[in-house]
Amino acid sequence: MSLYVQKYGGTSVGSIERIEAVADKVAAFRAKGHDMVVVLSAMSGETNRLIELAYQIQERPDPREMDVLVSTGEQVTIALLSMALKKRGYDACSYTGGQVKILTDNAHTKARIQQIDVERMRRDLDAGRVVVVAGFQGVDGDGNITTLGRGGSDTTGVALAAALDAAECQIYTDVDGVYTTDPRVVDSARRLDRITFEEMLEMASLGSKVLQIRAVEFAGKYKVPLRVLSTFEEGEGTLISLDEEDNEMEQPVVSGIAFNRDEAKLTIRGVPDNPGVACRILAPIGAENIEVDVIVQNISAVDGTTDFTFTVHRNDLNKAREVLQRVADELGAREVVSDDKIAKVSIVGVGMRSHANVASRMFSALGEDNINIQMITTSEIKISVIIDERYLELAVRALHSEFELSEPRKVQQGQ
Amino acid sequence: MSLYVQKYGGTSVGSIERIEAVADKVAAFRAKGHDMVVVLSAMSGETNRLIELAYQIQERPDPREMDVLVSTGEQVTIALLSMALKKRGYDACSYTGGQVKILTDNAHTKARIQQIDVERMRRDLDAGRVVVVAGFQGVDGDGNITTLGRGGSDTTGVALAAALDAAECQIYTDVDGVYTTDPRVVDSARRLDRITFEEMLEMASLGSKVLQIRAVEFAGKYKVPLRVLSTFEEGEGTLISLDEEDNEMEQPVVSGIAFNRDEAKLTIRGVPDNPGVACRILAPIGAENIEVDVIVQNISAVDGTTDFTFTVHRNDLNKAREVLQRVADELGAREVVSDDKIAKVSIVGVGMRSHANVASRMFSALGEDNINIQMITTSEIKISVIIDERYLELAVRALHSEFELSEPRKVQQGQ
Repeated sequence: MSLYVQKYGGTSVGSIERIEAVADKVAAFRAKGHDMVVVLSAMSGETNRLIELAYQIQERPDPREMDVLVSTGEQVTIALLSMALKKRGYDACSYTGGQVKILTDNAHTKARIQQIDVERMRRDLDAGRVVVVAGFQGVDGDGNITTLGRGGSDTTGVALAAALDAAECQIYTDVDGVYTTDPRVVDSARRLDRITFEEMLEMASLGSKVLQIRAVEFAGKYKVPLRVLSTFEEGEGTLISLDEEDNEMEQPVVSGIAFNRDEAKLTIRGVPDNPGVACRILAPIGAENIEVDVIVQNISAVDGTTDFTFTVHRNDLNKAREVLQRVADELGAREVVSDDKIAKVSIVGVGMRSHANVASRMFSALGEDNINIQMITTSEIKISVIIDERYLELAVRALHSEFELSEPRKVQQGQ
Repeated sequence: MSLYVQKYGGTSVGSIERIEAVADKVAAFRAKGHDMVVVLSAMSGETNRLIELAYQIQERPDPREMDVLVSTGEQVTIALLSMALKKRGYDACSYTGGQVKILTDNAHTKARIQQIDVERMRRDLDAGRVVVVAGFQGVDGDGNITTLGRGGSDTTGVALAAALDAAECQIYTDVDGVYTTDPRVVDSARRLDRITFEEMLEMASLGSKVLQIRAVEFAGKYKVPLRVLSTFEEGEGTLISLDEEDNEMEQPVVSGIAFNRDEAKLTIRGVPDNPGVACRILAPIGAENIEVDVIVQNISAVDGTTDFTFTVHRNDLNKAREVLQRVADELGAREVVSDDKIAKVSIVGVGMRSHANVASRMFSALGEDNINIQMITTSEIKISVIIDERYLELAVRALHSEFELSEPRKVQQGQ
């Protein structure tokens, strides 16, 4: 008998029929004697409908009132699920974020959870009730309704699991787990049984959008085992948990291949290579709220100048180019060039830490297919390369094959 | 500079355009320097949409969860109106019933207000903010969301006006006031400038459904001047206030003519006229939760039996007849007869108290048109007659004319 927190997303509760199906799932767990806390999103489309109403009034609606408005979406689904559970003979009780005291800061529309008062939930659980909580919302210290921003229901689930010391936080969604890479690119992409928090963070931020990144960070911080499963299909999903490389033989070198086409590359050529030049180039970019991802500075040329290259989100390319041109004029640089036909491909895996030559295996696999690497960046558990976007699928398939990700996991010795 | 509480119903906030129009109205009051508290219903149709969702799950949904569900309707409109006010440059802040601490008992779906904490509203008003409150809802002592039942937003308005000692509670609706009678029956029916709480209660309960009866009771109890006005037309509406017969010359004898066709008549004939017979007849009816309205007992006949007649709601007629037949058998009564082709017509006015012969004027006016009176019942400020429903319109017109209700109010001496 364990305590489970289950979170169901908008498509999982998108109609009365689907809410009834969720009630069946929850009831089955409860019938086994488990204590159940269920976190729900709004019915799919409802949050957008509400936001649309607000936009009819004003282009930038007041954030406090926006939270009052959109938080109604989850309040509808928690009431309906509780009714459906009661119909099945299971006692249940619904709570808004404010009622269950999910205390947040007052950053409306993107608030962060500070504290959760579990007393009332414990009392309900002890009385055998299923506790049904509105995701995505909380209340600030002054009693104002707040929301956690898009995807915040995942964070609510993890936070409740942490506060209640749950055995597992199960995120039910419309995919059945985390894959080695996008199955639309690689037919033989395989669902991972397990992945570490760190790997998931690298995968998520790189485009395998299964879970909200803040939820994963939160789960990692509080060591809440997180499982991603499908609402619509049976299966064990993917368990996201602590790094257990030391005690598990099956740890692979690389867990997955992430990629995206969202970036563009900017290069400033022939910059006089003085101390502090990187800062003088990047500070004006940051001042415009443009996020920079990969950064590479060439070694100085004979003439004492250098080239400086970085990537930004494609949507920011024009603005970044303008800023960079201004900087180039100030610094007396030769020219600014840009390229938005690039892609980023990354291999991710905690196993890299203890296995040598992972990078060279990656580069040689790409080289065998004549894929030119434009930029490289590495972290402890990730290696990313920037390539011409035409070669993206080819690169992902080559790497998926090189690191044998289609095979069930087995020990892979570093060479 | 006064404090006004304004309540806008579902049709008044039924679309974004209408919410913008309400914002204009509120802003105009605020611009004059008045302190404003606005109470809103859900957008018209929304509460029914939500109830329909619940009914898809269960025929009798859990009442606590029903309140969690339907209370979202008003939460949407308060957020939208606050945004619309801010767009116009007026600071505003929305509150759910729970946030503004409208404390109720825990009778879900029909809760009663027990207490209101005005501190937060006072702070907002002092800071120049328009306070926008969700009608129809509150919170019980355990923090559960409650609702006050259909039309409960009127009650919220009056309760807030009482708690804040407002100058007036203004109920904006789709009619422009209270009329002497239904204008669909009498062309010359006239809007009343003023009416007393007691008269309004008699008018409302008799079918002139402008205001929720509980709201009027509440307003009378706490002496909150109540004004009914149209959201869509200019005008002063009708002010419902204390009886000022003593100090106002313009007090008429009769203020209005109410009527309904909702009742049916039952007669038990030839009942042995023993002490306690009325109770033996009516107790079994009450036990079936059937409400009885007009009751008449004939004087005993020579044979020591009597006839006993009463009216019930037409929907209850069949059940009441069954019960009454059983009673008749037990008591050895001669027969039970019933008639659902009846109507009730009432004249209402606090002026009756001090003017004699109002009843005889009523009866003679009906007699002149050959309308037979089947039953009569009177209260201090009301006289009702039961007649054949075919004569309803004729009777209403005759009485409207007899008491000169089409004329602007003037002193009418009792004869």
